[in-house]
Amino acid sequence: MAEIETFLPLDQAKLPLFAGIDVGGTNIKIGIVDSTGERIAFTKIETRQEEGPQRAAERSAESLASLIDAVGGKPTDVVRAGLATPGPMDIPAGLLLQPGNLRAWHFSPVRDLFSQACGVPVTFANDANAASFGEFWTGAGAEVRNMVLFTLGTGVGGGIIVDGRLLVGSHGAGGEVGHIVIDCRDDAPNNTCNLRGTLEGYCGAYGVLARTRTAIAQSDGNTSLAKLEGDDLTPLAIAEAAEAGDELATSIIMETAKMLAIGMASVIHTVDPESVVIGGAMTFGGAGNALGERFLEEVRTQTRKRIFENLKDTIAIDFARLGGDAGYIGAAGLACDDYQTEQK
Amino acid sequence: MAEIETFLPLDQAKLPLFAGIDVGGTNIKIGIVDSTGERIAFTKIETRQEEGPQRAAERSAESLASLIDAVGGKPTDVVRAGLATPGPMDIPAGLLLQPGNLRAWHFSPVRDLFSQACGVPVTFANDANAASFGEFWTGAGAEVRNMVLFTLGTGVGGGIIVDGRLLVGSHGAGGEVGHIVIDCRDDAPNNTCNLRGTLEGYCGAYGVLARTRTAIAQSDGNTSLAKLEGDDLTPLAIAEAAEAGDELATSIIMETAKMLAIGMASVIHTVDPESVVIGGAMTFGGAGNALGERFLEEVRTQTRKRIFENLKDTIAIDFARLGGDAGYIGAAGLACDDYQTEQK
Repeated sequence: MAEIETFLPLDQAKLPLFAGIDVGGTNIKIGIVDSTGERIAFTKIETRQEEGPQRAAERSAESLASLIDAVGGKPTDVVRAGLATPGPMDIPAGLLLQPGNLRAWHFSPVRDLFSQACGVPVTFANDANAASFGEFWTGAGAEVRNMVLFTLGTGVGGGIIVDGRLLVGSHGAGGEVGHIVIDCRDDAPNNTCNLRGTLEGYCGAYGVLARTRTAIAQSDGNTSLAKLEGDDLTPLAIAEAAEAGDELATSIIMETAKMLAIGMASVIHTVDPESVVIGGAMTFGGAGNALGERFLEEVRTQTRKRIFENLKDTIAIDFARLGGDAGYIGAAGLACDDYQTEQK
Repeated sequence: MAEIETFLPLDQAKLPLFAGIDVGGTNIKIGIVDSTGERIAFTKIETRQEEGPQRAAERSAESLASLIDAVGGKPTDVVRAGLATPGPMDIPAGLLLQPGNLRAWHFSPVRDLFSQACGVPVTFANDANAASFGEFWTGAGAEVRNMVLFTLGTGVGGGIIVDGRLLVGSHGAGGEVGHIVIDCRDDAPNNTCNLRGTLEGYCGAYGVLARTRTAIAQSDGNTSLAKLEGDDLTPLAIAEAAEAGDELATSIIMETAKMLAIGMASVIHTVDPESVVIGGAMTFGGAGNALGERFLEEVRTQTRKRIFENLKDTIAIDFARLGGDAGYIGAAGLACDDYQTEQK
C-alpha cells in the first residue's frame, strides 16, 4: 500500500471535499482538499501507463477510498474530482489525444473512466493548466484575480487565470505559453513540436542544453561543462557549475532568464495579469537558493525592460509556492469551481 | 449641424437602446444601437481636442440628443453609453492618462464627464478593445465565443474576447497585442513606446515604412518606390506599387504578413480563440481587393506553419467586417453587457 500523508484534520475542514488526481508519465498524485483548498490527505501511486487508463482509474479510486478512510471520512464527503493529464486533449469530449508519455492511453475517454471508477463527476484539465489554477487558488497567486504561470521543465508549459477563471481556450490550448514565438528568424531553433523560434525552444530543458552545447563548442574550453558528455550534461549540472562560479554556465542561465522574460512580456501585453509565477522542475534552485534568486531577479529586470511603463512596478513576478502539489490541488480546485457553479 | 445617418427604424428595434461614443484625435463618432447591436443612427463631430474633454462631452451629448430626435425616440430609450478612447487609461477609475493625440485631455475623469453630460451611466473602454467587442458582437466574430482582433494602423492594437467577455486585464492592458515581442535580438527595431522587437515595430505603419526605406537603400534601385521621398512614402503608396507589380513593394507587404502571423501564433497559443480578425486602416486593400486577399492568404499560411497541428484547420483568420464603425458599436455593446449584468 502506498504511503498516505495527512494534513488538516477533517473536523477543521470546510466541507464538502474534492479529490485531485494528477496523472504523469511516472506517477499519479492523488489528494483530497477541502472547499478552501486546504490539503486533507495525499498519496502517490505508480502510473504503470502500459496497463492502460481503465486499470489506472480503478487503482486511483482504491487509493482515493483509502485516503478518505485514513482521515475518518465518509465516501460521500468527496463530491467531485478533478483529473489533470498531459495534453493534447479534447476537454469538452473528456478525451485524451496523443500525449507522448502515456502511449497506452491514446484516444481514451479518461474523464468518464475516472468518473465511473471513483463514483463522482470529474472535471478534466490539462496538467499545466491545473497547476496554474492550484497556484491561483492557494499558492503564489492566492491574492490576485489575474495570474499567469510559466512551468519550466523538459518543455515549457503554463496556464492563465482571467478574472478568477481558468482560460481553457476553444481547443484546450489556452495558456500554451511555451509555444509563443520569441524569435522571428527563419533559422531560429525548432522545438520538439517542430515549431520554430518558440519560447520552449530556448527555455525548455532541451533548448537550454542545445544552447549550452553550442556555447561550449564556441568557447576556449575554459568551462567545467566542457568535460561533461552525453547524458551528463543536464540543467542540474549547469546549475551546479554556475554555483561553483563557472562563467559559461552562468551566462546560459542568465540568457534563459532573458528569453523567458521576452515571452513573459508578450503574455503580459496579451492578458495583463497582476501576478506572473514561475514553476516547474528547472528553476535553477528556485526560491531561497542564491542562484535561483539571481535567475528570478534577472527575469524581473529583463521583463521590466520590455513592458509598458505603468506595468513595471505593478506586476509581481515570483516563484510558484506549491511545487509538485500544484497539479492535484488545482485539479481539485477546478472541480470545486464546477461544483459551486452547479449549485447556483 | 453634423450629418445624421439613420438605419433600422425604431419600431423594428429591440429596446432599450445604447449609445456608443468613439473618441479619436480627429473625430468623435457617436451612434445608437439596439440591444442586438443593430445600428439605429450615427453621426460624427470634430474632436477639437484643444477645447478639452468637458466641452467635447457636452457636444457629444447634444449630438446624441439629435440622433434620438432624428429617429423619433425618447431620451429615456437610451439607458447607457459606452465611451471608447485611445489609451493609456485607468479603466476602474474612469480616468484618461496620457494619450498622445488628446493632449488637452490628460488625466481627465472622462467617464464621469461624459456620464454627467449625457445623463446616463457610462462604460469606459480602450478604443481597440471596444472595436474588438464590436466585431465580436455583430461583425466577423459574431458566431464565436473566443476571438482576437489585430488592428493594423500607425500602431498595432487589438482586443481579446474570452468566453464572450472582453479581456480588459488588471491595468487595462489586455489585448495590447502590438506589444508582444517577436524578435529577441538585442538590435531588433524599437517601436514608438521605446520597446524593442515588438510586433508593432515591424507591422505598424512606421515599422513598415522603416523596413521599406531599408529595403530601398539595399536595392539596386529597380523599384518604383525609390523615387518617393519623405511623406510621399506611405503604406498606401506601397500598396499601389505592389498592385502595379513592383517586387520590392510586394515583398514588404508579404513580410508584414509573415511578421503579423508570428505574433498571431503567439496569441493563438496564449488564448486559443476560434477566430482571429484583422482590422484597421492598413490592410493593403482589405476584403475583396486582390492585394488585400493575397496579404490575408499569406497571413493564414504563415500562421498555420507556427501553430499546433490540431489548431491549423479550426481557427478562422479573416478581415474585420465593421470597418470604422467597430469602435462605437463595440462601446455600445460593452454598455449593453454592463446594463444586462446590472439587471440580473
